Amino acid sequence: MITFVQILDFVGTFAFAISGIRLASAKRFDWFGAYVVGLVTAIGGGTMRDVLLDVTPAWMTDPMYLLCTGLALFWVIAFSKYLIHLHNTFFIFDSIGLALFTVVGFEKAEALGYPFWVSIIMGSMTGAAGGMLRDIFINEIPLIFRKEIYAMACVLGGISYWLCSLFGMEAYLCQIVAGSVVFLARTLSVKYNICLPVLKGE
Amino acid sequence: MITFVQILDFVGTFAFAISGIRLASAKRFDWFGAYVVGLVTAIGGGTMRDVLLDVTPAWMTDPMYLLCTGLALFWVIAFSKYLIHLHNTFFIFDSIGLALFTVVGFEKAEALGYPFWVSIIMGSMTGAAGGMLRDIFINEIPLIFRKEIYAMACVLGGISYWLCSLFGMEAYLCQIVAGSVVFLARTLSVKYNICLPVLKGE
Amino acid sequence: MITFVQILDFVGTFAFAISGIRLASAKRFDWFGAYVVGLVTAIGGGTMRDVLLDVTPAWMTDPMYLLCTGLALFWVIAFSKYLIHLHNTFFIFDSIGLALFTVVGFEKAEALGYPFWVSIIMGSMTGAAGGMLRDIFINEIPLIFRKEIYAMACVLGGISYWLCSLFGMEAYLCQIVAGSVVFLARTLSVKYNICLPVLKGE
Repeated sequence: MITFVQILDFVGTFAFAISGIRLASAKRFDWFGAYVVGLVTAIGGGTMRDVLLDVTPAWMTDPMYLLCTGLALFWVIAFSKYLIHLHNTFFIFDSIGLALFTVVGFEKAEALGYPFWVSIIMGSMTGAAGGMLRDIFINEIPLIFRKEIYAMACVLGGISYWLCSLFGMEAYLCQIVAGSVVFLARTLSVKYNICLPVLKGE
Repeated sequence: MITFVQILDFVGTFAFAISGIRLASAKRFDWFGAYVVGLVTAIGGGTMRDVLLDVTPAWMTDPMYLLCTGLALFWVIAFSKYLIHLHNTFFIFDSIGLALFTVVGFEKAEALGYPFWVSIIMGSMTGAAGGMLRDIFINEIPLIFRKEIYAMACVLGGISYWLCSLFGMEAYLCQIVAGSVVFLARTLSVKYNICLPVLKGE
Repeated sequence: MITFVQILDFVGTFAFAISGIRLASAKRFDWFGAYVVGLVTAIGGGTMRDVLLDVTPAWMTDPMYLLCTGLALFWVIAFSKYLIHLHNTFFIFDSIGLALFTVVGFEKAEALGYPFWVSIIMGSMTGAAGGMLRDIFINEIPLIFRKEIYAMACVLGGISYWLCSLFGMEAYLCQIVAGSVVFLARTLSVKYNICLPVLKGE
């Protein structure tokens, strides 16, 4: 039986992989390189989290992530000319992935008994570190450091989860609130062009 | 007693370290920086693998890798003007190292009971991730993503190993077949200029 | 009770975080990005060490590092125009941090029973790898590979610690000698402009 969370996980992985593969194609990577960048974008954050939490990364026990990235590569190769029209669709998928990955990461750290600030960091890392690794691989300054509310949306979601559980709310409610906060912070900040202040350079 | 595999391991480590040190010298790194880049090229892939497999990296129990990199640095400093003539020799050594590292990485994951796709990834990571880290350190887009059959040769070798063991072949035969596939895929693709297709950019 | 070492640890973390935040501000990162770069500079080396040693990173059990980086960010935002005059003060703090982090890293590996060369590497990694990660994040070639005696000072400190303990000196004396060697190697090399030789490029 495939659960609702597994479907969301697949959607998020697919959207993250597509984002990596499209940026790799802009740098004229070959198919293999594009696959690796897509994979790192999709699983890099979760892998960093699992290494720090000292548990086995999810992709080492479930081939879904590798297959899903392969599907994303096929999709980009086959339908690249139509992808540009799907920009908004991918943005929605990407934001769903961000919300889901943040909640999954937060709960994984919490279940292992870490304090709340570690859970917030692990949630944000799961959501945002894959994109950061992607940008390092393609030799760009990570976007999440300079533009848009991206990793900050994960932090807000993690704080929401923590506050909800402080008030004794049940897990599924915490998940819904935290996921919605990530999704809304991300989408609204892009829609209304909300940015964090830039640090004044010397 | 030094075994045949240890000699190959030394040759591969030396060739990988030389490749890192030579690229560092092109960027005018100092001796220490060149040593670090050489070391990362030689042991980076195996270290990433061992961190993911949650075992102690080989260089933390055997000083051979550090000494071998030191020898490679000395070699480049002392004989830099002759190195250019040894280009083909180093290419052969580097391909031997790639083949050996792939087989070692595959078997390490297999021995720990991971499924075949994890073994293929760990073999490829052992062979190719050091060069990727080297390119990130010297601030270049990793070569393996854009040019030549390099990491792809490791993947082919890993698949060969898996198929051989599926057919019930003994370990030493699997090793020979997989190593030969990596070596031949690498050398023939360079000789005949075979590349993977480039992903069409937007 | 706060110990003397904890105060030094705070000073070192603060100085490292400031160095990351200032470089991020020169690249026009936003506040969040600057915080992440500051944090990575401060805790990146220790985290790499702890992942390799397979122990829980210090910042996952003690919130001090996160708070200290937050304080550093506030400091840079509030007092950025005065920071330029504090250049020498920060250089001293940074060198103290380098010395302390090296000693802490060396002892952590030694306490886990690793051979001396692993301890030297772990000490140097604790001191210098955060700055290396910082430079990768802001997409620059790591400074420690090209300029000044920085990571080399850590290596010299680690070797000193090892020699002192070989001669049967007590732990606190080893710490003082090793820390002083790092501090002096760093500060004197900058004062007298001592560099390692550059590897001649091809």
